[in-house]
Amino acid sequence: MSTRHFADRLTLACQQKGGPICVGLDPVYEKLPASIVGDHPVPPSSAAVAANALFDFSVRVLKAVAPHVPAVKVQSACFERYLWAGVEAYHKVIHEARQLGLIVIGDAKRGDIGASSKHYAAGCLADHAFEDTGKLLGPDALTVNSYLGVDGLEPFLEVAAEQGKGLFALVRTSNPGGDTVQSQTLNNGRSVAESVARLIADAGEAKGRYIGESGFSLLGAVVGATKPRDAERLREIMPQQVFLVPGFGAQGGAADDVRPCFGRHGTGAIVTASRSIIYA
Amino acid sequence: MSTRHFADRLTLACQQKGGPICVGLDPVYEKLPASIVGDHPVPPSSAAVAANALFDFSVRVLKAVAPHVPAVKVQSACFERYLWAGVEAYHKVIHEARQLGLIVIGDAKRGDIGASSKHYAAGCLADHAFEDTGKLLGPDALTVNSYLGVDGLEPFLEVAAEQGKGLFALVRTSNPGGDTVQSQTLNNGRSVAESVARLIADAGEAKGRYIGESGFSLLGAVVGATKPRDAERLREIMPQQVFLVPGFGAQGGAADDVRPCFGRHGTGAIVTASRSIIYA
Repeated sequence: MSTRHFADRLTLACQQKGGPICVGLDPVYEKLPASIVGDHPVPPSSAAVAANALFDFSVRVLKAVAPHVPAVKVQSACFERYLWAGVEAYHKVIHEARQLGLIVIGDAKRGDIGASSKHYAAGCLADHAFEDTGKLLGPDALTVNSYLGVDGLEPFLEVAAEQGKGLFALVRTSNPGGDTVQSQTLNNGRSVAESVARLIADAGEAKGRYIGESGFSLLGAVVGATKPRDAERLREIMPQQVFLVPGFGAQGGAADDVRPCFGRHGTGAIVTASRSIIYA
Repeated sequence: MSTRHFADRLTLACQQKGGPICVGLDPVYEKLPASIVGDHPVPPSSAAVAANALFDFSVRVLKAVAPHVPAVKVQSACFERYLWAGVEAYHKVIHEARQLGLIVIGDAKRGDIGASSKHYAAGCLADHAFEDTGKLLGPDALTVNSYLGVDGLEPFLEVAAEQGKGLFALVRTSNPGGDTVQSQTLNNGRSVAESVARLIADAGEAKGRYIGESGFSLLGAVVGATKPRDAERLREIMPQQVFLVPGFGAQGGAADDVRPCFGRHGTGAIVTASRSIIYA
């Protein structure tokens, strides 16, 4: 558990270490080097073998990047593919990354309502105190889905506020198909993404309770690097949200595209790059 | 793997067994009977102890309901709370339910893009063939999130089509806060939920490839029982979608409220009830 506000920790880490860069860790067994996979078959016939390989590879990447970047984003899907063995590896990779001093974003895009959100917040965001897992640190922040509205996010916000953690709510995703929902225009002239952005801005305020000394909220927003025009407008609507910006590199976003995501002092955004870095 | 179309299997099962009812399995350790929890502490200090208790309780419920209802919905969040031990229990509960002849919906509300969706489809929907897990059957269907657009659903659709499985995409959720996103009116007069419904109707058609003999698609929709007025309109837009209808019972939806969710012949919908049944 960290007592400092998430956005303050993130802002400081970006200033002290390598700039606002987040290495995306999306390990795929079929792409791992022979030094990791060894004699095991591809595709893997054992979930545990695959999960161990993902873990070993991830730790290698973490150790390589930890001195140079402030943050990593760990893609849950890559691990869930290997069932509970994969999920164990996912949690242990997150713990390892935190031990290395990295700020860790769990990219699990969870979203549900009421009691189910509460369970997800406990399982996917909180630190754990089970005696059989050891005191395993959860991620510093989690990506969450906004389609169910803000009441579904409240249990996540509570855990985040209690434990000095953060959230990144999906507002504008980097995939082409995201437009078919998020770019639709409402009868008030705003796009659906802008409308969601307003909800997130309000929820992330909570009478100042969620705002850190940096001026940013513990509730951030995912805004894809492939949508630079939208980013400018979304930054206006969400001045207090840290933007998590995927889509840089392999998905086609370029440096100019991410500029509008930042706040006035060049803070308030963190750019993720995955495939273009981890296999390098 | 089942070779028959998911919607056909579901329609037949509803006709043969108890009507269009789906028992929601959302087990919470703190609410389990003493006969399951025994001398273990509440809240649990061990993830494995909690996960085993959830498994034992779930199997007891499954055996009690299997002769009477066609389907169950298993809430992933309840299990993920207990990390990999919980995830192991989740997968094994699903396998057990399928062995008992129930149609099983994994309620994990996953949603991502591209490669990540592919990983989720493999981990959360497909049957598994890892030698260390045994040939573990995955759920017959999975709930998925629509906010990222239809391209994020394609990998799920592929697995579903290949393996005779189905999907339920979130269109209109049962929580009050869902309105703040889904009820917004677009400049064409439709609501956001109606616009998403159109996307789902189109994606679930795929030139007939996804439509079963029952006339329903393998891509269904989640439409909450608490929104009866919307349900009527959404049924018009999505004549070929099976509706998964949560919110009945504990969340306030009543029998009259779910009627508009059904198609012309009283098929095409399945109503879930969770808290009101499993602790009875």
